[in-house]
Amino acid sequence: MVVVMKPEASQAEIDHVIKRAASMGAQTQPITGESHTVIALVGDLTQVQRATFDAMAGVQKTVRIQDPYKLASRTTNPEGTVIDVNGIRFGGEQVVVMAGPCSVESREQIIQTAVAVKEAGASVLRGGAFKPRTSPYSFQGLGEEGLKYLAEAREVTGLPVISEVMTVETIDLVAEYVDILQIGARNMQNYALLQAVGKTRRPVMLKRGLSGEINELLMCAEYILSNGNMQVMLCERGIRTYETATRNTFDLNAVPVLKRSSHLPVVADPAHGTGDWELVPPMSLAAVAAGADALILEVHPDPESALSDGDQSLKPERFADLMRSLRRVAAAVGRSIATPKESDDSAGMAGNKNRSTEETSKSAVLA
Amino acid sequence: MVVVMKPEASQAEIDHVIKRAASMGAQTQPITGESHTVIALVGDLTQVQRATFDAMAGVQKTVRIQDPYKLASRTTNPEGTVIDVNGIRFGGEQVVVMAGPCSVESREQIIQTAVAVKEAGASVLRGGAFKPRTSPYSFQGLGEEGLKYLAEAREVTGLPVISEVMTVETIDLVAEYVDILQIGARNMQNYALLQAVGKTRRPVMLKRGLSGEINELLMCAEYILSNGNMQVMLCERGIRTYETATRNTFDLNAVPVLKRSSHLPVVADPAHGTGDWELVPPMSLAAVAAGADALILEVHPDPESALSDGDQSLKPERFADLMRSLRRVAAAVGRSIATPKESDDSAGMAGNKNRSTEETSKSAVLA
Amino acid sequence: MVVVMKPEASQAEIDHVIKRAASMGAQTQPITGESHTVIALVGDLTQVQRATFDAMAGVQKTVRIQDPYKLASRTTNPEGTVIDVNGIRFGGEQVVVMAGPCSVESREQIIQTAVAVKEAGASVLRGGAFKPRTSPYSFQGLGEEGLKYLAEAREVTGLPVISEVMTVETIDLVAEYVDILQIGARNMQNYALLQAVGKTRRPVMLKRGLSGEINELLMCAEYILSNGNMQVMLCERGIRTYETATRNTFDLNAVPVLKRSSHLPVVADPAHGTGDWELVPPMSLAAVAAGADALILEVHPDPESALSDGDQSLKPERFADLMRSLRRVAAAVGRSIATPKESDDSAGMAGNKNRSTEETSKSAVLA
Amino acid sequence: MVVVMKPEASQAEIDHVIKRAASMGAQTQPITGESHTVIALVGDLTQVQRATFDAMAGVQKTVRIQDPYKLASRTTNPEGTVIDVNGIRFGGEQVVVMAGPCSVESREQIIQTAVAVKEAGASVLRGGAFKPRTSPYSFQGLGEEGLKYLAEAREVTGLPVISEVMTVETIDLVAEYVDILQIGARNMQNYALLQAVGKTRRPVMLKRGLSGEINELLMCAEYILSNGNMQVMLCERGIRTYETATRNTFDLNAVPVLKRSSHLPVVADPAHGTGDWELVPPMSLAAVAAGADALILEVHPDPESALSDGDQSLKPERFADLMRSLRRVAAAVGRSIATPKESDDSAGMAGNKNRSTEETSKSAVLA
Repeated sequence: MVVVMKPEASQAEIDHVIKRAASMGAQTQPITGESHTVIALVGDLTQVQRATFDAMAGVQKTVRIQDPYKLASRTTNPEGTVIDVNGIRFGGEQVVVMAGPCSVESREQIIQTAVAVKEAGASVLRGGAFKPRTSPYSFQGLGEEGLKYLAEAREVTGLPVISEVMTVETIDLVAEYVDILQIGARNMQNYALLQAVGKTRRPVMLKRGLSGEINELLMCAEYILSNGNMQVMLCERGIRTYETATRNTFDLNAVPVLKRSSHLPVVADPAHGTGDWELVPPMSLAAVAAGADALILEVHPDPESALSDGDQSLKPERFADLMRSLRRVAAAVGRSIATPKESDDSAGMAGNKNRSTEETSKSAVLA
Repeated sequence: MVVVMKPEASQAEIDHVIKRAASMGAQTQPITGESHTVIALVGDLTQVQRATFDAMAGVQKTVRIQDPYKLASRTTNPEGTVIDVNGIRFGGEQVVVMAGPCSVESREQIIQTAVAVKEAGASVLRGGAFKPRTSPYSFQGLGEEGLKYLAEAREVTGLPVISEVMTVETIDLVAEYVDILQIGARNMQNYALLQAVGKTRRPVMLKRGLSGEINELLMCAEYILSNGNMQVMLCERGIRTYETATRNTFDLNAVPVLKRSSHLPVVADPAHGTGDWELVPPMSLAAVAAGADALILEVHPDPESALSDGDQSLKPERFADLMRSLRRVAAAVGRSIATPKESDDSAGMAGNKNRSTEETSKSAVLA
Repeated sequence: MVVVMKPEASQAEIDHVIKRAASMGAQTQPITGESHTVIALVGDLTQVQRATFDAMAGVQKTVRIQDPYKLASRTTNPEGTVIDVNGIRFGGEQVVVMAGPCSVESREQIIQTAVAVKEAGASVLRGGAFKPRTSPYSFQGLGEEGLKYLAEAREVTGLPVISEVMTVETIDLVAEYVDILQIGARNMQNYALLQAVGKTRRPVMLKRGLSGEINELLMCAEYILSNGNMQVMLCERGIRTYETATRNTFDLNAVPVLKRSSHLPVVADPAHGTGDWELVPPMSLAAVAAGADALILEVHPDPESALSDGDQSLKPERFADLMRSLRRVAAAVGRSIATPKESDDSAGMAGNKNRSTEETSKSAVLA
Repeated sequence: MVVVMKPEASQAEIDHVIKRAASMGAQTQPITGESHTVIALVGDLTQVQRATFDAMAGVQKTVRIQDPYKLASRTTNPEGTVIDVNGIRFGGEQVVVMAGPCSVESREQIIQTAVAVKEAGASVLRGGAFKPRTSPYSFQGLGEEGLKYLAEAREVTGLPVISEVMTVETIDLVAEYVDILQIGARNMQNYALLQAVGKTRRPVMLKRGLSGEINELLMCAEYILSNGNMQVMLCERGIRTYETATRNTFDLNAVPVLKRSSHLPVVADPAHGTGDWELVPPMSLAAVAAGADALILEVHPDPESALSDGDQSLKPERFADLMRSLRRVAAAVGRSIATPKESDDSAGMAGNKNRSTEETSKSAVLA
């Protein structure tokens, strides 16, 4: 950290900063420039708070130098972490496509969609049972009933399942039925929830909040990691900007930035990112070209009947078209699209793998 | 709602939109312009989802006409709601000043600050016991111990107390000690938490999220109101923009916009809004001039020793200076600053009033 | 346009809106909903101003339905416009790569770079002679001297040249030396400059401003088109958002949105978009995958000696690597990378083509 | 400036940075922390470019310490600059109210409005003759005819006049008729225009761009100041954010930030800032409470007939009401509202003062 003194700061004020920094365990090095004195704080800064210095007389501002996250940093695992979910590997050579409806709406709808997305080549099934909705008067999801249908769809297809968990109290329930726990954008900074999923041993996909800085997303991952769960994936899903031509601004730049800063696998969600199904195919191709490890897409057999997000959902045929293009673009950047596991095997594998992956990715981190 | 068809939309596509809208209970009126057909949906739109229409063939876009909130709307209570907390009235002629440290750090600190802010004229005490922190490695608050110190400070000074509640599980605990429940910016869209405080009968101050639209803030208030709790205050505390000269962009425009759109009292938080104690006095004066019903300010006896937010905290003397200026500006706009209740009375009043205010503000809403 | 009346609007106020709209040549259709009356304005709205209605008593808000641009709209030329610059075609099957240094710094530098980028496969040379700089104390470009060096580099390599024009007075000078006039992001809404380049018959690349909405970019293109110059390309180069991990937020979504809304060719500038050379390769690949018609990239033989933007410039070898990857990704999405023309031919072609392209693209628009 | 090296940077890379910095005239001081080496650059940094270092191998990032502006900095004139326009003083104890229509539409309209705003207490007349409009098809102002009407309104009322200048070529023309040259938000970074008004000796009001950072606004002022014109006022007029409840987000925080950073007078424009006439009164009062030196407001005798910005214009009676409230709030913060000069005197004064003020404010800067 660097403390920049005001041009008119007195020597006593400078000395006070130095003394205070020392009392927090930092080494200091004052540098006197033409107009300002700046004081660099180095060494162990875990006890140093920026606000303390910003509150001091004579201080103009403080500037952070080091990244605030540790376990999420690429330096912790320069090779990159691979998370194995029932044989589907996130963060490796293959690009994983997760697909399914925004909400689970009925037994038929989810099974029909699961079969269709598997046939087109998706290797993970998505579907929401608990839905965060802007309006208290909107459909809020089928809850446990939806989870059961998801589990049934998994049995039929062998596809592992990802679904959102919104509260601490329902983590156990959701974890009973799904393979990957999703933390939604609105809950990115719900620290109680992050700590609680950090205590499970289930892979977690953490979505960037609508106004989440990339550094903050990594700090939120740090909440999960520091509670012992090393199986975290990061998901870019659009940020809020002044532009209204798209519902959100899908910030694809976050993909290479996150890959550079962190060892965690990175997922792209162009459906929520743009909010517009016509933009999903080009931005999905772009995401793979930019280096995403996985995509999460919305597919619905009848988008205009969807109870949520029909406007950003693809029909199964369009999705199948997109999968063909994705394979070509993945090949062009030296990767391939992960293929779904056979259902008999994977159903059996699910339970075992789920337990064993914990060690896998932990050891990856420690490697 | 208005559905705008693409210029090339077929008559069949237009008819399909009309039929679908009718099936959801809406009346429709198609209007054919020079290049587009637009279809207005009127009547009861509670079953109408925009995404349904955005997903349809031939539709270019949909445009919302009516505000999505109902109970939070000013039309529900054109006179404005007044919330009475132990005799301190939010939303009336008087402007309420709430002050205290960001975090409760010790028994001495909170009592000393409470006495100082009361002496300067604050009528509500603030102080955090559960703290949402960006880093898992930072001080997270004293928890229940902090709540006990807050209650003790209330006994000593007679000031009612506001403090944040972060999880559904701790609502009862926090409500046992404090008079106003605060929902923090990061939890603005934590719907489970909103529903749970909506089921209490304790006044709630709901903070706008960092990227919360004003309409979304009102929809989040709707989550509380529709669960039966009519005592909700809205708080502007800074939004995230591209400007970095201030930590956040304190969006003071939200004050008159919220007063026009809603009947709920509006609080301004220039400390979090700007993140810079030097800007707190001018922006506090501005907030009162713009029509805020209350201010919430950070005061710390020794900001540079604060365990959080020292950079945006005022020293007690500066706060006392500011109170003098606030009284003059309040008078200039035809209002006055609420004065603290005498401690003997108010201590006794607290319990009674707390219960009785429920009816008071409810009846205000229904008036 | 739709005028939304306040719930409490009187019949006289509604009638006044209708009468006023009629006096401006619009047809009106009032629709009475549950709480509001809304009045749709259709027909010829060229004389209708939204602000007029927003200023009226009883009006809550107005909502625009039709896009405000005409000549820039895809409906004007559904097939898409192809702009031919000395045989290099923008907007067709091929993707054009423009490359070169941010600033022309010396005769040697620009010729050396031109040769290198041509060798790697770029087909247009970029280089700034007039530079808009944030600080009045920074290098402002070589001016006409720089233009002469650019022209010399064109003679040597046969590559057509693009360079920025910053003022009305220098348009003729710049047009004398370069093949494509660039309007920079800071001048997106410099209407005098737009009108003046609109009166030339030279192709123009118009960059989106840092806070330019996509609709505004198209309105700025409209300023050029409506002055008679149909050879306009649109360039996405990053917008300003709250995120600071990248210098700007390169909004790649703008590429498919612009392709859908407009018939004009779309260029992507990931160097300015991200401000970080390490992000240029992945985001260039992504831009081609998303459907960009051209890329504009910064290449410098010695980035750390560059007088501007060294931080976002590629070295020639990295650029050559990137070109190889670009060819693979272009093929994956059914396109190819344009190849540079042979120097003898193209030098001769330049003059002729420049004149003839005017008609070419005009007729495309009228087709 | 501080250069932060990557954790894996080699000693050779560190040495290279140091050597390069030295060659640019900077003194360097490397500091080795736990994970990074950081190199502080102090002394004369005028020849140092950040991009040079960001382009170097082994460099993670650079951090700017010193503000980039010099002449605009408060340290240049700690007492604050007062600009005297025909006896109306900007930046002193008094708050100046400038008012008038957005556009000059006719001789009658501007004279009628001038008389009305003077009667209500405004001391400067505003009115646009050259109008930057989003659409090429909208009313673009009366041009020189409008300037003549403005001059006539000045003769009648004695009010000095402010009007926008959009191009270098029209500066002389505009300066012939008006007392204060306005640079609009879209031209904040039109450097050619800034340099040209910097060469005049006419006071300039520079508006912050829609996405202008406060530091950038000050750098743009630097362009004017460094060309010799010391009479610059800065104007906050709303920035672009994600919030759509107001047309722009009027960033009132900029007022105290600019007053702290710079010696230049600060003007607030709540009409453009919010785009909503109902919000203009509360935000005008707030601006004075926050410390603005002047307000610029839109007043139109018949807002719904206005050719531009009717939606954000006040009627004369509302403006007169607002003036009464402004006087009370100004008094509450220890200031007063400037009163208009008598017309006989001021007409005569205009010419003289205009010349003499140049020295006045220059000497203020040098004081």
